[in-house]
Amino acid sequence: MPARITLLTDFGTRDGYVAAMRGVIAAITPDATVDDATHDILPGDILAGALALERYWRLYPPGTVHVAVVDPGVGTARRAIAASADGRRFVAPDNGILSFVLRAVDRADVHEIREPAFLHHPVSATFHGRDVFASAAAHLAGRVGPDAVGPLVSDPVMLDPVEPVPDRGGVSGVILVEDRFGNLITNIPGDAVADGAAVSVEGHAPVRVRRTYGEVDPGEVIALVGSSDRLEISVRDGSAADRLGVGRGARVRVEG
Amino acid sequence: MPARITLLTDFGTRDGYVAAMRGVIAAITPDATVDDATHDILPGDILAGALALERYWRLYPPGTVHVAVVDPGVGTARRAIAASADGRRFVAPDNGILSFVLRAVDRADVHEIREPAFLHHPVSATFHGRDVFASAAAHLAGRVGPDAVGPLVSDPVMLDPVEPVPDRGGVSGVILVEDRFGNLITNIPGDAVADGAAVSVEGHAPVRVRRTYGEVDPGEVIALVGSSDRLEISVRDGSAADRLGVGRGARVRVEG
Amino acid sequence: MPARITLLTDFGTRDGYVAAMRGVIAAITPDATVDDATHDILPGDILAGALALERYWRLYPPGTVHVAVVDPGVGTARRAIAASADGRRFVAPDNGILSFVLRAVDRADVHEIREPAFLHHPVSATFHGRDVFASAAAHLAGRVGPDAVGPLVSDPVMLDPVEPVPDRGGVSGVILVEDRFGNLITNIPGDAVADGAAVSVEGHAPVRVRRTYGEVDPGEVIALVGSSDRLEISVRDGSAADRLGVGRGARVRVEG
Repeated sequence: MPARITLLTDFGTRDGYVAAMRGVIAAITPDATVDDATHDILPGDILAGALALERYWRLYPPGTVHVAVVDPGVGTARRAIAASADGRRFVAPDNGILSFVLRAVDRADVHEIREPAFLHHPVSATFHGRDVFASAAAHLAGRVGPDAVGPLVSDPVMLDPVEPVPDRGGVSGVILVEDRFGNLITNIPGDAVADGAAVSVEGHAPVRVRRTYGEVDPGEVIALVGSSDRLEISVRDGSAADRLGVGRGARVRVEG
Repeated sequence: MPARITLLTDFGTRDGYVAAMRGVIAAITPDATVDDATHDILPGDILAGALALERYWRLYPPGTVHVAVVDPGVGTARRAIAASADGRRFVAPDNGILSFVLRAVDRADVHEIREPAFLHHPVSATFHGRDVFASAAAHLAGRVGPDAVGPLVSDPVMLDPVEPVPDRGGVSGVILVEDRFGNLITNIPGDAVADGAAVSVEGHAPVRVRRTYGEVDPGEVIALVGSSDRLEISVRDGSAADRLGVGRGARVRVEG
Repeated sequence: MPARITLLTDFGTRDGYVAAMRGVIAAITPDATVDDATHDILPGDILAGALALERYWRLYPPGTVHVAVVDPGVGTARRAIAASADGRRFVAPDNGILSFVLRAVDRADVHEIREPAFLHHPVSATFHGRDVFASAAAHLAGRVGPDAVGPLVSDPVMLDPVEPVPDRGGVSGVILVEDRFGNLITNIPGDAVADGAAVSVEGHAPVRVRRTYGEVDPGEVIALVGSSDRLEISVRDGSAADRLGVGRGARVRVEG
């Protein structure tokens, strides 16, 4: 099995920052396969990064190292961490971007990245994507285990638990993120949503939960359980975000 | 020759959908090389996807599997297909995105993707890029032939033939797409265009066909046969789309 | 060590031009690893391309072939060049995009790409990214040396030297580029900037040079030596470009 690393950042691609990360990796682990997951997370949007990571981390084979760098705290005292969960490895700032990974598994090992041998020197004050995370990932893609990078972390930062709540026989939640197609992704898991249930987004008439886009006409609003097992509000061949004029934080209610 | 897969989608990259496809492929065919062709096709723009695919499919070596997923019909009864043409393989929804491939070859084999062994389970209703196309591509990049994925398709969907027409000693066509540089790409093939011919875009004065940008001054409108062997209207160091204020569907006429 | 090629262009990705380059490379050197450095350079912005390349070329291991195609002069008499510097190789139009590479080394070999065996035929008049640069890079990633591609070039085009100038006990320079985060990157090197020095951007009050973002509050303007060893003006958790309303060419002064 070849070494494999994925990269998620909010760096964009136009400035060459991602290529700097790839160069560091290539110099340490030339045979690793490096996949760009995304570099288009909005600057500093940790939640969007966490939700993107949720979509793919477990589809990759065990042994994959997932790098996730949305790091508004670079240059402050925030920790850098390496984690191991369900056979995959992770490298990230300790700011909650791994929340959905750590919640999805029974057990995860998290270590602070401190060992100088695994950093790219001189370590800059502003670009840990290159000097800390890419370098550590390249070592972890080889024979180095997460326990070698530094001390155990027992309290990794988790995003505020934004959990849906049972509510008068239904469930109340919120929209977490809008995707490229204008689908509105909620924090309500698929198993809390019965087929045919009524879903209301604040300020709008309820719609029925369906299984596929094919059940409604083009342009119609639809609720369904999406590919990440979350309730989503969509418009067939259109954008629910545009149509409904709502986004992150808008309240969503499912009638039981 | 290593297994090689290219990915064209309208998924963008920010949400992690492409990484989900890559993860599925990595789990099935870890040694395959996976190239991002583009993920920036405008949502649902099948014609733009077909024209992008036309630019590169035959440059890749035989054996390459080209995935093309612009799929507004996901969740409806549209078929998923695998094709073989001139030694390259293709995986796509059956909506015309392969039109320029299928027209360019004397013979193509097209099969419907039905065999459950080649899908990623459970197959979602909304994300066939991951569950059908990536999975099937990973198998086709190995030892599986298109005929193993399902029954023969004799009538793949083709985009409406938008062919140029001979017209009073010249040729009349239309603009199909505008590229990143504002070049206006037409449906008129290079062999219908003589050097020095006069080209008119509707509502604008005719310009002469040239061989290179170097023959006109910066800022000047120029017509030439572009790198995909199609007549293009360009502005040297500028955007013809902005300058002429026209786009897809605008009429173009070549005087013989 | 596997053959490795990086690609920097202003082609964007939506049209399939980059995939055409990758296809040409795959057909010539199927085992090469090809990294996308960036395709989002603004059309024709040679300086931005040169600055992006500066960020990563030396981080890659020796033997890497860096392709840099921002080429507004395609179709004119401008030369195509291959260069060798500090063990890395380069393929680019001769328009100054390699300036920061060539200035950073004591000695570089530059050759004009002329040898037909290393081009993709027929060579188009508009797409040398595919027909000249990708093809030559694929050959250079194998056993071909830069001296085999054509005659020596003793006078490669260099960008106008925009060097900072000593000035009343300080240094005066300019902003070269704005990055994705709104950081303003200057032409003033790190070693010309003492910790705690006062930095003024034209029309704005001076700020002190700091080492990390953590030394100021969110939203505050800061000057620091960035990850490419250039003086940068930033806003913690914000955009200095937006805040200060300045961009390329704005004057920056460091008080000694």
